[in-house]
Amino acid sequence: MMNFNYHNPTHIVFGKDRLHELNQLVPESAKVLVLYGGGSVRRNGTLEKVLTGLGNRKVVEFDGIEPNPQFNTLMKAVEIVRSENIDFLLAVGGGSVMDGTKFIAAAAPYQGNATDLLKHGFEWLPIDSAVPLATVATLPATGSEMNMGAVISHESGKLPVMSPLLYPQFSILDPTLTFSLPSVQVANGVIDAFVHVLEQYVTYPVDAQVQDRMAEGILKTLIEVGPVTLAEPENYDARANLMWSATSALNGYIGVGVPHDWSTHMIGHELTDLFGMDHAQSLAIIQPSLWKIRKAKKQEKLLQYAERVWNISEGTEDERVDQAIDMTRAFFESLGVKTRLSQYGIEPGEVDRVIHALQEHGMTALSETGDMDLTISRQILVDAYA
Amino acid sequence: MMNFNYHNPTHIVFGKDRLHELNQLVPESAKVLVLYGGGSVRRNGTLEKVLTGLGNRKVVEFDGIEPNPQFNTLMKAVEIVRSENIDFLLAVGGGSVMDGTKFIAAAAPYQGNATDLLKHGFEWLPIDSAVPLATVATLPATGSEMNMGAVISHESGKLPVMSPLLYPQFSILDPTLTFSLPSVQVANGVIDAFVHVLEQYVTYPVDAQVQDRMAEGILKTLIEVGPVTLAEPENYDARANLMWSATSALNGYIGVGVPHDWSTHMIGHELTDLFGMDHAQSLAIIQPSLWKIRKAKKQEKLLQYAERVWNISEGTEDERVDQAIDMTRAFFESLGVKTRLSQYGIEPGEVDRVIHALQEHGMTALSETGDMDLTISRQILVDAYA
Repeated sequence: MMNFNYHNPTHIVFGKDRLHELNQLVPESAKVLVLYGGGSVRRNGTLEKVLTGLGNRKVVEFDGIEPNPQFNTLMKAVEIVRSENIDFLLAVGGGSVMDGTKFIAAAAPYQGNATDLLKHGFEWLPIDSAVPLATVATLPATGSEMNMGAVISHESGKLPVMSPLLYPQFSILDPTLTFSLPSVQVANGVIDAFVHVLEQYVTYPVDAQVQDRMAEGILKTLIEVGPVTLAEPENYDARANLMWSATSALNGYIGVGVPHDWSTHMIGHELTDLFGMDHAQSLAIIQPSLWKIRKAKKQEKLLQYAERVWNISEGTEDERVDQAIDMTRAFFESLGVKTRLSQYGIEPGEVDRVIHALQEHGMTALSETGDMDLTISRQILVDAYA
Repeated sequence: MMNFNYHNPTHIVFGKDRLHELNQLVPESAKVLVLYGGGSVRRNGTLEKVLTGLGNRKVVEFDGIEPNPQFNTLMKAVEIVRSENIDFLLAVGGGSVMDGTKFIAAAAPYQGNATDLLKHGFEWLPIDSAVPLATVATLPATGSEMNMGAVISHESGKLPVMSPLLYPQFSILDPTLTFSLPSVQVANGVIDAFVHVLEQYVTYPVDAQVQDRMAEGILKTLIEVGPVTLAEPENYDARANLMWSATSALNGYIGVGVPHDWSTHMIGHELTDLFGMDHAQSLAIIQPSLWKIRKAKKQEKLLQYAERVWNISEGTEDERVDQAIDMTRAFFESLGVKTRLSQYGIEPGEVDRVIHALQEHGMTALSETGDMDLTISRQILVDAYA
């Protein structure tokens, strides 16, 4: 096991009918900016309950944070925070709204040019304050409700933003608020959470048994509850397990003391940026092909994954690995998500554009050991096309 | 899944050679009381490294916190905190030192009679401040390094103390500091952590799949690394996995959204109090017999435990449950810990004294549903005797 630090101060408020607790959770004197995306939280009544929960506090609303939240949109909210003396941000929505709110929290008090904040990658931002933020999470997927990271879209690409000042103070996770999600978003969320686990688990072995067993536990839960959630949208326990799986997949706990990969995410970000596909769609395309190309490097953990997650115990090592990859792909497809680039109407020659974008963004030494160059990324993309 | 809140602010600093980081972790102006037990931390060099790590800070030492820390001992430390204007407590040791330090942290600023603080059971203490505390954990067992609870021994019994003000600010967990532990303490630690998981897992099912899978993951890890640690005291990865298992067993994460039992602990506390046996020894005696007597009530989770933790899939339901109980008992005994009251030279008639003590302490409605009266506790103790 590798040395690690773990410190996650977010207070999780999980379960049915918790929105009225906003009245205790948000400071009484706060002037609150409530941020959300399209109109769904308005239509399904969540926004109204949030506003009721905030009681007599001064509230300003900011809507229109789009999927893959755009820098320019977020800077409009930064202006409001500054001009209205907002001192608490409440994100109501999924990963994009939560991520966007984190960026606003960092940018509002920042004295320099806000684009500076997009240049630090996985390093912590050089900031010493942020506006306190919290979330009402309505989409189990990204884990943003209990971590310190965000991904922001800018003309220069999809860029990570990290700071321990950006942990939500609290997050309310009410599974009933997810009952009305479109099934495509549910499927995307299952895949997003699943690949979050894989990027921290299918790396090289460091004998971190607790983390491995917990990672496998989340994967098995997602395999069980994903299809149930799609078939029975109002099955509370399935929704609750999906929601807590997604949070647990990326709140840092399973990722302590182990190497992380994230190359599926990095290539996936380029697909979203270039072709507009959903984040989870991009992951479903890249992950199986990345394993096909990298199976020698990842063999030991792929065999463990095959045995413990998919109960594959017969055949040669190579056959077992192939079977695990095929079952992963089949799982994604069973949720209604395509796993081939060609299925999105993309021309074979477009692979060059992805490689060019990776190069532009400095993504030339990916993976848990930094050995994944553009030649390997091209092999993965070619495999992912067919 | 039941509704839950989760908020654990302790910063974990895990791994080899971390003690020098005390210099960054403890406030620079702090006047620190370093608390420990017997002389082992002095003999094995840990204390010296801690004092070096504290640099130029003003430091006072308090030694002699005994196993099952005594109220009267702890009150002597409280006097020192007050008279020396101590503003930071650093526990260096195992569960008893950490638990004792938590009580001192609560009692020092408390205006009333400190015995009041022993009267709240599992309810949070009615305090609004505590001295900041941190730990250097040297014994993987209780999980006290990452939770808000303590158990204090007083003439009136072993009593729980809880408050969110008692989370350690940080805990340094260096597996190498555990290399020199006597094997009896290692075995006790494995069993303590194992039963912590069981008390939160073998209850009634609420379809909390993430929590169940994580609980099973810790149990399987303990089954694997317990014997390895005893056989190879300087096996770093075994030590690291044992240490992180013990912390993960009782930092709240696997216990969210599920019912808790704790009746094995409550009966066990009386055995320690009356007969002086180690905490883990008492658990190893009670847990298998509690299941024998209560197997109808706990059948569903016992069958899940049998299948997923011990791979028991053959036989009738009753046979599988019995086999799981037998394997649990055999696991404890394989670590060198006895599982029968009679093996401790206790007379059969002493069961009456245990029942009397349970009655005195109000332990007449134990278990996750409160249905366990003294008649049932007696059946368990009689079964545990033979």
